[in-house]
Amino acid sequence: MKTAIITVGKEVLTGKTINTNLTSIASKLNQIGIDVNRSFVIDDKVEEYYEILDFINEDLVIFTGGLGPTIDDITRETVIKYFGVDTYINNEILAGIKTYFDHIGLEMKDTNNKQALFPKKSIILENKLGTAPGVIFENNGTTIVIFPEPPPEMLPMLDKLIEYLKERLDIKLFSRGFRLVGTGESTMEKSLTGFYDLHPNVNIAPYAGIGEIKYIFTSNSEDDLDKAMEEFYAKYSGFIYGNLDDTLEGVIVGLLAKNKMIISVVESCTGGMLASSITNVSGSSSVFHESIVTYSNEAKTKYLDISLDTLNTYGAVSSKCALEMSKGLSNKTNADITVSITGIAGPTGGTPKKPVGLVYFGVTFNGETITHKKMFNGNRYMIRKRATIFALNLVRKQLNGK
Amino acid sequence: MKTAIITVGKEVLTGKTINTNLTSIASKLNQIGIDVNRSFVIDDKVEEYYEILDFINEDLVIFTGGLGPTIDDITRETVIKYFGVDTYINNEILAGIKTYFDHIGLEMKDTNNKQALFPKKSIILENKLGTAPGVIFENNGTTIVIFPEPPPEMLPMLDKLIEYLKERLDIKLFSRGFRLVGTGESTMEKSLTGFYDLHPNVNIAPYAGIGEIKYIFTSNSEDDLDKAMEEFYAKYSGFIYGNLDDTLEGVIVGLLAKNKMIISVVESCTGGMLASSITNVSGSSSVFHESIVTYSNEAKTKYLDISLDTLNTYGAVSSKCALEMSKGLSNKTNADITVSITGIAGPTGGTPKKPVGLVYFGVTFNGETITHKKMFNGNRYMIRKRATIFALNLVRKQLNGK
Repeated sequence: MKTAIITVGKEVLTGKTINTNLTSIASKLNQIGIDVNRSFVIDDKVEEYYEILDFINEDLVIFTGGLGPTIDDITRETVIKYFGVDTYINNEILAGIKTYFDHIGLEMKDTNNKQALFPKKSIILENKLGTAPGVIFENNGTTIVIFPEPPPEMLPMLDKLIEYLKERLDIKLFSRGFRLVGTGESTMEKSLTGFYDLHPNVNIAPYAGIGEIKYIFTSNSEDDLDKAMEEFYAKYSGFIYGNLDDTLEGVIVGLLAKNKMIISVVESCTGGMLASSITNVSGSSSVFHESIVTYSNEAKTKYLDISLDTLNTYGAVSSKCALEMSKGLSNKTNADITVSITGIAGPTGGTPKKPVGLVYFGVTFNGETITHKKMFNGNRYMIRKRATIFALNLVRKQLNGK
Repeated sequence: MKTAIITVGKEVLTGKTINTNLTSIASKLNQIGIDVNRSFVIDDKVEEYYEILDFINEDLVIFTGGLGPTIDDITRETVIKYFGVDTYINNEILAGIKTYFDHIGLEMKDTNNKQALFPKKSIILENKLGTAPGVIFENNGTTIVIFPEPPPEMLPMLDKLIEYLKERLDIKLFSRGFRLVGTGESTMEKSLTGFYDLHPNVNIAPYAGIGEIKYIFTSNSEDDLDKAMEEFYAKYSGFIYGNLDDTLEGVIVGLLAKNKMIISVVESCTGGMLASSITNVSGSSSVFHESIVTYSNEAKTKYLDISLDTLNTYGAVSSKCALEMSKGLSNKTNADITVSITGIAGPTGGTPKKPVGLVYFGVTFNGETITHKKMFNGNRYMIRKRATIFALNLVRKQLNGK
C-alpha cells in the first residue's frame, strides 16, 4: 500500500513549525509495514489541494491540518468535494462541538458547523482535546484520511488509523523494541552483520538519538519476533535498558524505588543537568532528596571537603577529584548511591592534556568508589548531555550489578 | 519568486529523522521575502526525481540530501541530467576530497569522484565539514540549488544561497528582530492590533517557543524597519530580552558578568533545570559558583535552615518557604543574587488548594527578598521548563532594575 502524506499549512512553509506529524505518522505506518512513498506540504488554497490530488497516485492519502473552525481551514470540505462523495451533518458531533464551546465559555459560531460534515460512508475519529474530529473514508480503492494538525489531537487518531489499516489489510504484524545506551549506531550495525540474515522474517530497524539508540522489531510472526528479540537481548543485554516506552531516568528511578535506595549527585560541568533528568521523572522524590552543583573549586571544598592538595596537584578535572567528590557527597548525605561529574564542556578551557570533552565520573556504592574517564564529542550542550546519559548508565549498571 | 523544496531520503519517509532542513531553509527564505510554495519529500529513485521535476513549476528549486559518496546518493547527477546542462569535473574540489580522505585516514573510492561533478556554469558551495559540496545553477529561468543533508554542512551553504538570491534578485531587504519573555503570542497579537497597519512596509512575524517568543521584522527600507522596531521596543521593552542571536540565560550571564555579580540558585520542583540552563552558557563559571537542589523537606532544613514551623504550617510549596529558601541561600553563599523555586510539577501531588502547576519563587538582591506566585500549564516537563524561564526572567528584571 503506497502512501502519500500531505501537510497543509503556511506554518510549515514559512519555517514557523517543524513537521513532526510527518515523522509520527511515517514511523507508525513503517512499523506495520506500510511505506510512505512521498510527502507534500501545501498552502491552504483550494487549487493547491486539487493540483496535488490530481498528481498523486498513492493508495493511502493522509492529510494533516486545516481542520479548525476558521474560514482558512478548508481541508475537510475541499477534499470531500474533490472526491465527490455524499455527505451529511453528524448531529452527535455537532452536539459535542456545542458542549465543548459551552465548556470553555465561548459562543459557537456557524463556521464550526462544518466540523460536523462527513462523507456518508466514513469513520469518524473523535477529538477529545479540540473541536475538529478526524475522518477516514474509502473512494474507488483509495483510502483518504484527514487529521487535525495539533499533535496531541492527532496522535490518538493515528493509533485508530493503524488499527483500521491492520484490520482492513489483514495485517498481522507484531512490533516491539528495545532501548539501548552505552553503544553507538555504527558499532551496533557492524556487530549486527549476519544477525539480520538469521531473521529474514523480522524487520529490525535502528533509530539513533543523542547518546542512545532504539531498535524496533516488526514481524508477522510473533514466534519469529520473540526469537529475534531473545537472541538480540542475549547478545546486547548489557546495553539494553528498557522497552520502547521507557526512559533511562525512568528506569533508574524505578530500580532505586524497587531497592528502596536514595541517590544523590554532585555536578560540575553538567551543572544540574543530571539532577534535572532524574527529577523529571514523576515520583522521583521517593529516591532523590538533594543534590549539589559545585561549579567552582571553592564550592568543591566548601560542600565536600575536597582537599586543596587534590585541586592544586591534580586539578578539578581529574579522576582523584571525581573520586573525592562522590565520596564526600556520600559522607555528607544519607544516599545509598552517589555520583559525581567533573569535566570540560568547552568550547573554551581545554588544554592539550585536558581537552574539551574530557569528563571524569565517580560512583560510590556499598562503601566503594569507582571512577571513569570519558572523552565526548560535540558542542557544549552535546558534551553535557552525553556526560549526563553516561552517568545515568553508570548508575543503571551499578544497580544491576554489572 | 515561487520556491519548491525537495527533500530526498528514506530517513524522513520512514520517520527516522525530522525534516528540520525544511524549517531552516523556509525560515531564511521567508526573511528575505521569498515564499516557499510547496515542499516535497521523495525517495532516492531516479523516476521519483523525474516525476516531481516534471510536476513542479516553481522558479527556485532546492534539493537537500542524496549528495554523499554511496551509490544510493544520486541527487547531483540525476538533477544535472534532468536539466541537460553541460558538466565538468572540478579538479580543485576533487583534490579537496582526496585531502579530506587522507586526513581521516580512509582510502578515497571512485564513487567519490562524482562529488566533483558540476554544471559548467554553476556556483560551487564549499563543504568544510564533509566531502559533498553544494551547488547553485541557473537553467531557463529556473534557479536550481542542491544541498547536502547534514544540517551542520547545509546551514553555511544556505547563508551563501541567501546572499546569492539577495544579489541576483536585487533584494534590498533588511531583517532583524527581538526576543521576548514574560508574555504570550495571543496577548501580544491582541496588543499589536493596529500596530501592523501603522507599518505597512514592514513585515512583522511572531515565532512562538516554549515560554518565549521572537518577532522578526523585515523591510526593504532600513528607515521603516528602524522606526517599527523603535516603536515596538518602546511599547514592549519590559518583555524584550535581546536580539535574535541571544538566549535568555546568555543575556543574564552577560548582565551578571558586566556587573561583576555572582548568582546562586536553590531548586525544588525544577530539580536542577535552572542551574543547568545557566551553566549551559560558555563562561558562566565567572558568575556561577554553586547551587543546590533541595528536593526533600529534610534537604531544605539541612542546607538552608528552613524552619520546621514554615514547613509544617505553610508547607514546602508556599511563599514563606520560597522566601526562606532564597534568604537562606543568600546567607550561606557569597552570591549577590539568589533565586529559589518551589512548586508542584505534577502530574500527581496536587490538591484543590495547591494544584499541579503552582510554583513559588524567591529572589534575594541588595538585602531584600521578593517572592512571586505563578500557575503554569502543561505536563511535568512544560511546568518545569516554564518555571525555569520565569525564574531567569525574574533575574533579568531585577538586574535591569525593573
